[in-house]
Amino acid sequence: MTTGITFIIFGATGHLARTKLLPALAHVVMDMPINSHAVVGVGSRQRTDAEFVELVRSSLMAGKLEPGCIDQFLRGSFSYQAVDTVDTFDDLNKTVCRIESANGLGGDRVLYLAVPPSQLDATLMGIEKGCLQSTLGWTRLVVEKPFGTDLATAEATNRLIQKGFTEDQVYRIDHYLGKETVRNLLVFRFANALFEHTWNRRHVESVEITVAESDGVGNRAGYYDESGAVRDMVQNHLTQILTLVAMEPPVTMTADAIRSEKVKVLHAARAIGNHDAVLGRYEKGIVQGTDVPGYLDEPGVPPDSVTPTFTAARIFIDNWRWQGVPFYLRTGKRMSDRVTQVVVRYRRPPVCMFHAPQDCPGHQNVLTLRLQPDEGFELLFDVKEPGDEGRIGQIPLSVSYDDVLADAPSAYETLLADVLEGDQTLFVRSDEVEASWRLYEPLLDRSDIHPYAAGSDGPADADRLVTTLPNAWTPL
Amino acid sequence: MTTGITFIIFGATGHLARTKLLPALAHVVMDMPINSHAVVGVGSRQRTDAEFVELVRSSLMAGKLEPGCIDQFLRGSFSYQAVDTVDTFDDLNKTVCRIESANGLGGDRVLYLAVPPSQLDATLMGIEKGCLQSTLGWTRLVVEKPFGTDLATAEATNRLIQKGFTEDQVYRIDHYLGKETVRNLLVFRFANALFEHTWNRRHVESVEITVAESDGVGNRAGYYDESGAVRDMVQNHLTQILTLVAMEPPVTMTADAIRSEKVKVLHAARAIGNHDAVLGRYEKGIVQGTDVPGYLDEPGVPPDSVTPTFTAARIFIDNWRWQGVPFYLRTGKRMSDRVTQVVVRYRRPPVCMFHAPQDCPGHQNVLTLRLQPDEGFELLFDVKEPGDEGRIGQIPLSVSYDDVLADAPSAYETLLADVLEGDQTLFVRSDEVEASWRLYEPLLDRSDIHPYAAGSDGPADADRLVTTLPNAWTPL
Repeated sequence: MTTGITFIIFGATGHLARTKLLPALAHVVMDMPINSHAVVGVGSRQRTDAEFVELVRSSLMAGKLEPGCIDQFLRGSFSYQAVDTVDTFDDLNKTVCRIESANGLGGDRVLYLAVPPSQLDATLMGIEKGCLQSTLGWTRLVVEKPFGTDLATAEATNRLIQKGFTEDQVYRIDHYLGKETVRNLLVFRFANALFEHTWNRRHVESVEITVAESDGVGNRAGYYDESGAVRDMVQNHLTQILTLVAMEPPVTMTADAIRSEKVKVLHAARAIGNHDAVLGRYEKGIVQGTDVPGYLDEPGVPPDSVTPTFTAARIFIDNWRWQGVPFYLRTGKRMSDRVTQVVVRYRRPPVCMFHAPQDCPGHQNVLTLRLQPDEGFELLFDVKEPGDEGRIGQIPLSVSYDDVLADAPSAYETLLADVLEGDQTLFVRSDEVEASWRLYEPLLDRSDIHPYAAGSDGPADADRLVTTLPNAWTPL
Repeated sequence: MTTGITFIIFGATGHLARTKLLPALAHVVMDMPINSHAVVGVGSRQRTDAEFVELVRSSLMAGKLEPGCIDQFLRGSFSYQAVDTVDTFDDLNKTVCRIESANGLGGDRVLYLAVPPSQLDATLMGIEKGCLQSTLGWTRLVVEKPFGTDLATAEATNRLIQKGFTEDQVYRIDHYLGKETVRNLLVFRFANALFEHTWNRRHVESVEITVAESDGVGNRAGYYDESGAVRDMVQNHLTQILTLVAMEPPVTMTADAIRSEKVKVLHAARAIGNHDAVLGRYEKGIVQGTDVPGYLDEPGVPPDSVTPTFTAARIFIDNWRWQGVPFYLRTGKRMSDRVTQVVVRYRRPPVCMFHAPQDCPGHQNVLTLRLQPDEGFELLFDVKEPGDEGRIGQIPLSVSYDDVLADAPSAYETLLADVLEGDQTLFVRSDEVEASWRLYEPLLDRSDIHPYAAGSDGPADADRLVTTLPNAWTPL
């Protein structure tokens, strides 16, 4: 375990750093055996060190951290360095070396890139030019999502990274991987024989993965209109859930064994045809009782935008386990509710013994893995209703994490702790991010965007993707 | 549906009739489309019709039936007839015919034998002698348990019955089969593909069936000391649960298709060797905080009794589905709690990925079907505990019937309604009762009775029967 670390945060004054990264970092520094730490904030605007410390302090207070935790974190060394051109990275390296020396730090460095996609490549070139890799300890590079905007840009960024770093130094963030419930998918699958034995084409009829938001684009139209639902959600978050749900058991529970199995899922995925995906854009409507505008009327959205705010796709994994089983993916903004869940529908019994033939299709075991907001499991199964009429009802076996488990650390805390421990399991490997972009390339240029009312669950056209029972998406 | 029925109840003034049968009959008569009914009580003592009506009324009031239900039931015709010798059954037939005629009943008759085992054969001979089978409508014979005291007596009683009745007229009662939760076993198994697909030797490590009582022998020592745990519980109730849990899917959900599959389980059961069963008898102890005497000190128990109050057995079903999977059966009086449950232990994952090798044995999926008192299901499975230590915990997916389903009718109501509808599914067929006695014959003469303290879960010797994980009986 390292006991002295320098965190060099690019984009240190941005929204992500202030709301997520700095509060999580303060928690992790308190919880882990770190004796001393330095934080070097990097941004494009000029600021003094004192201004940076105040920004950190107000971020932690806004994050409702305990005063003791805030004080302990601020006891470290805090500096700020503005960089604009590649040349100014030389100064940054000098600053870092000076701070390490002054604080007796051993040279272990975390380079955290919390910069917008447009600045990513320039920052990587600057890091290379400024020789920011430590010559005394280890250097780990953390790269925030989005990683690329398509296959070509992702490949280009990977090549830039690989000029200076080996893969075992690189931590590509997908914060969904840090969520307790997403991490639990592996345990759920490979520690429980009952479910793993039925986790295949013989027993499963379909798998549906939903990441629904009730929020609209908010004040992020500038970013969002450049990305849209496929780039913002499908290529990363939904794909992470997809690969964890579909992967084969890894040889060991180590980072590369797990990530290799995840990549295999993407390699086995059939190319997404035109009829396998439906894109949508929300129109005005009512979300949870409130009138909201359509996407094109949101502040900052160009009137001729063709950015999708909704994506539904049907994906087939052409391997021995999943051949013929559709994986239905959907995500959207301004849907009726905020929920992330995996719904596994089991095949019906081969003989329908308790129902009239026309009622049989309605009866299948349904396992719901709810990832947020109310994490838990629910297994719907048939029971006899009391009385002599022989009626069959469905009841849920269920459990809510909140009821049985302690509070979980935030996704960012989990991921930061893993960076410090050198555990890459929950980070996206270069070939993984490229395979994912390759899969979704056919969706990136589509302009057939179907309207849906805000507060609905997406365009009606999306229903035709669901060709297995119940021939419709699970209501949110 | 029959609209007028005569119930001829043998043993009509006994404990069973007063506490269970008559209240259930009143409910069923009210709930079903029965226009008119007559009840002919039969006993050995002389009583007037008016005395019998008062006995019925007080039974219903003690059973807390609603006044409206009591009044409606008593609007039927009630008579009492004493019989002692076989010859007096002629009088009974005359009484029944007179009542049917006077009340415009169509001749459909239920002959309900709620008599002690010692009077069963004599009653059957009397019925035969008195020609009590209806010549106008149907006649159905209901026989209470215990049915025989061993294979020879069960076969003899079956032969007696078969002289006058065809199998489709005979309803052998095991009231466990009328319990909602026992009936639900078939639905649980054959309407839910998830579980049925794993319900076999490849996935299940062991099945444990427990019918535990915290009560002692009470004031029934006279009956109980003649029977004991094997005759009183194992041969009937536990075996019914065993066959429902282990049976193959029936061709249809009809009585004979189901009962044929149940018999096949018994035919596939390996003979129970000396080392496959442990008998026990409770000594004094503390049950739920109260000091209680040992069995031999209970009033009415002979001091030299060798009657077991506890039985544990390990049974193997040598068929394709269950070869090698032990079915552990246990039942006893004065155990620590009153509970009836089936515990299905699944095999562990083939690779232990999340635990140190020594911790792996403790982690298996466990499905508990709780039949009483708090009916429901519980599925224990592994999840990741929150935090970065990678600890694995077990949490239950669970559901309680009380929370989700309406009140169930009593077992006797269910069974009586089935008798009236001519549905034999929940009654024990002649070959079934004989196959069961054949299986347990080796236990009937054993005198190696191990002591256990009242309030414990049986003799320590019983633990050696459990040769699969966790190498002990499930704590109650």
